[in-house]
Amino acid sequence: MRGNWLLRRVFLCNSHAIMDATIVFYDIPSQHPGVTWSPNPAKTRYALDFKGLAYRTEYVEYPDIEGVVKALGGAPTEKKPDGRPHYTLPMIHDLTTGAVVTDSFNIAVYLDKTYPAKPLLPSGDFALVAALQAALQPVIISLVPFGIPASQRLLNAASSGYYRARLEGMFGTTMEALFPAPGSDRDRAEWAKVKDAWGAVDAWLVAANARYFGGAERNYADLYVAAYVFWVKTVLAEEKWRDFATWHGGRWAHLLSTVEREADGAPQ
Amino acid sequence: MRGNWLLRRVFLCNSHAIMDATIVFYDIPSQHPGVTWSPNPAKTRYALDFKGLAYRTEYVEYPDIEGVVKALGGAPTEKKPDGRPHYTLPMIHDLTTGAVVTDSFNIAVYLDKTYPAKPLLPSGDFALVAALQAALQPVIISLVPFGIPASQRLLNAASSGYYRARLEGMFGTTMEALFPAPGSDRDRAEWAKVKDAWGAVDAWLVAANARYFGGAERNYADLYVAAYVFWVKTVLAEEKWRDFATWHGGRWAHLLSTVEREADGAPQ
Repeated sequence: MRGNWLLRRVFLCNSHAIMDATIVFYDIPSQHPGVTWSPNPAKTRYALDFKGLAYRTEYVEYPDIEGVVKALGGAPTEKKPDGRPHYTLPMIHDLTTGAVVTDSFNIAVYLDKTYPAKPLLPSGDFALVAALQAALQPVIISLVPFGIPASQRLLNAASSGYYRARLEGMFGTTMEALFPAPGSDRDRAEWAKVKDAWGAVDAWLVAANARYFGGAERNYADLYVAAYVFWVKTVLAEEKWRDFATWHGGRWAHLLSTVEREADGAPQ
Repeated sequence: MRGNWLLRRVFLCNSHAIMDATIVFYDIPSQHPGVTWSPNPAKTRYALDFKGLAYRTEYVEYPDIEGVVKALGGAPTEKKPDGRPHYTLPMIHDLTTGAVVTDSFNIAVYLDKTYPAKPLLPSGDFALVAALQAALQPVIISLVPFGIPASQRLLNAASSGYYRARLEGMFGTTMEALFPAPGSDRDRAEWAKVKDAWGAVDAWLVAANARYFGGAERNYADLYVAAYVFWVKTVLAEEKWRDFATWHGGRWAHLLSTVEREADGAPQ
């Protein structure tokens, strides 16, 4: 169903497996070799592409993330329900400086500090991006019923059971119960919530009379939002994406295609 | 109880009633002549002070706001429950350009566009400030039980009944029931929510390793936050302010005193 888009992503990801990479970027794999899908690593991938830094991607299955991050001395980013540290991707290992950085926000701050050319956030006002992260929670929450079960179905066997157990624990229900049956009243109601949540984000841009959060040009805040558009396009049913792509004057579809062209190295 | 602080505010406000003002700033009065208290007009007052623009303040009681705004051709900012337009302050009337602008966000955008010197937001990324507004909703909601009844008590008779009727309708309870009895379990529980909400804002600044939203210097986002600190200091019981002022390393008390010194025209 998502075949053409996924194949295109294989091509895009492979195009970045360049030999002189000085940064190793750790992402989460899917059933399709080289096909990425997860919104949090996408924030870092877009940041590396935006800055034009040479990197290669290492894919790590969910049960292996803790061991891989710990082995490199990376910091945990969350706490498990029982209080123990929880390790997540994205992570980068900068072979030039030796730095190992976890959490997409910390990585963005690190990249701008270490490689000031082509800043992700020319103002340096990263506290406003932290506020944006909080303000986007309703967007992320609204996508849960659609995006989480669809992501779980896309995973390899090595990750699939782990992801199911963790997310079902978090939401207190099964993947099957979380997902609204296509065409059902619940499907329409939950999808309407998704549109409302993105409508609020559209309203912030309209209020500022801005094409992007960065004004006339994209900044890290736009890449951050684009990572969720990417998730919608990559994992949700194709008819959902076709609808989503029309919302708010096509703003989100335009943003994603622009950011992905940037990842491709094509002229903007 | 708030005597010294309020008297100081009288002095500060009067010091801005200068004869060569080219901007008229519309604010909401209290029982104390020249003493302002409302957080939304404070955003605009701080913006005018930050930019060093000459203005004079006109005080309008709540029941008169709609008429005063309409008479100048100002736009409504909200909708009433029945769908009719609702008019609010702040408003500015720029006597140089003839512009009449309502809503603190729109006023900030207008001021930076019309008077580019000393920009409120050097990056121009006002869509991020719109996201900050959304992200601060938990802060504002947490302050409601303390701030709304205390504000109502501070108003002149002309505004007091109007404010009570509107806000009691909005929250579905009386001012007296909204306000937690000092020293009660509910008082402690609601106050803990206020601290949690401000803790999230502190965490955004800590994550960005930033003293202010503007980094090393204040920008409009800092003035926006300072307006709520001002509300806490001006209307809440003095013991609440004494506690609040110690939170997060004294960050909020420091921010307010810095912004108020700016309003005074004192050296920073």
